[in-house]
Amino acid sequence: MNTWQSVRADVLERIRSREWPPGELIPTEQELAATLGCARATVNRALRELADSGILERRRKVGTRVAATVARRTVLDMPAIRTEIENMGAAYSYELARFTTRHPTPFAARALQVPLSQELLLIHAKYTADGQPHCCEAVWLNPDLLPPLTREDVEQQSAHEWLTSHVALTHGRFSILAAAAKGDCAFHLNIPEGTAVLTIERTNWADTHPVSFARQFYPPQHRLVSED
Amino acid sequence: MNTWQSVRADVLERIRSREWPPGELIPTEQELAATLGCARATVNRALRELADSGILERRRKVGTRVAATVARRTVLDMPAIRTEIENMGAAYSYELARFTTRHPTPFAARALQVPLSQELLLIHAKYTADGQPHCCEAVWLNPDLLPPLTREDVEQQSAHEWLTSHVALTHGRFSILAAAAKGDCAFHLNIPEGTAVLTIERTNWADTHPVSFARQFYPPQHRLVSED
Repeated sequence: MNTWQSVRADVLERIRSREWPPGELIPTEQELAATLGCARATVNRALRELADSGILERRRKVGTRVAATVARRTVLDMPAIRTEIENMGAAYSYELARFTTRHPTPFAARALQVPLSQELLLIHAKYTADGQPHCCEAVWLNPDLLPPLTREDVEQQSAHEWLTSHVALTHGRFSILAAAAKGDCAFHLNIPEGTAVLTIERTNWADTHPVSFARQFYPPQHRLVSED
Repeated sequence: MNTWQSVRADVLERIRSREWPPGELIPTEQELAATLGCARATVNRALRELADSGILERRRKVGTRVAATVARRTVLDMPAIRTEIENMGAAYSYELARFTTRHPTPFAARALQVPLSQELLLIHAKYTADGQPHCCEAVWLNPDLLPPLTREDVEQQSAHEWLTSHVALTHGRFSILAAAAKGDCAFHLNIPEGTAVLTIERTNWADTHPVSFARQFYPPQHRLVSED
């Protein structure tokens, strides 16, 4: 009897062997179920998995095609930093380093879709796990789109925590890159300037407005891991 | 009339305001549809989106809870390098740099679940986009689990392309980190040693066996981008 995993392996094998080349319509679920001698639900489960991975493309009324380019998709967990640290079984601590009002850098202005002349809040902070530097961040916030935010608000909790409890965030955008640690960042992470740091840029939206733009820096060996 | 987006915003607002605290069971779809004056399918769509983002947890027979920790999930496209380059509208080129048989590093041995004494294939290669260095890679392959693979096989196509056309890969594991460019890597990418390079480690499985372990290095400013 065929499981959905064996149906998936069978379909993958036909794609990889070019029996079903890129762009080709594959047989219907009924036809596959009949050929493979299994339930249609089993075939459906296997095809759904392959579509989620970007290997197949399913179109209503057209059918299921082999994707023209096999772009694998993977799901990445982007936990809040508190969760990240607590999941390691370590003690979480947050420290506010700087709270200022200033004009954005061109990069921050573009991320938050504001003119360079508009004043924004800039918060620098550091996170430790069992007392060791875990991450540091610079967060730009657009005060025009937020409830009043003072230094006291982010002395005990992070900007992200303040944000999630005061604003209905609807979606986010992540960008992952490698950068060389500079100034404050190297100091907070206790690493030499120029060390490679994994950098996560995160823009949070409330409906159609970007309200915050954060850059988070992680010391060497920090990994983002995902399986598909 | 409520759209699924407005239902999602409403639910998010209740979670963010702690009207529904972390871990709390929220009303059923029927109850929400009645309260909000919309179709149950609309509520279902909104809750599904929030569950996909990790904000809600849905359990059969139990109901829908606010996730205890809001771990946002995001979907990352991990295209083949050829696709990545062609999507930029640039000319793809691949160059084999080294093809050797050798004992694995401890790291590669662990990734491929083989003893340090087992000989593996190691392939170094470089990719360019319009003639500019785009990425370089080191790929370890377990020849015991693969059809015969010679130097000629990977002179015109990458190890990944050879692999996808000869083996039914079932799943993968990605790890993303920042590293300092060393030796060959710095040379291939034409950057000074020590430059921060975005590093993607990718293990590919054929059923229960890891068959390949690749480390790919990208020059500064390369970004992985995702939206949720």
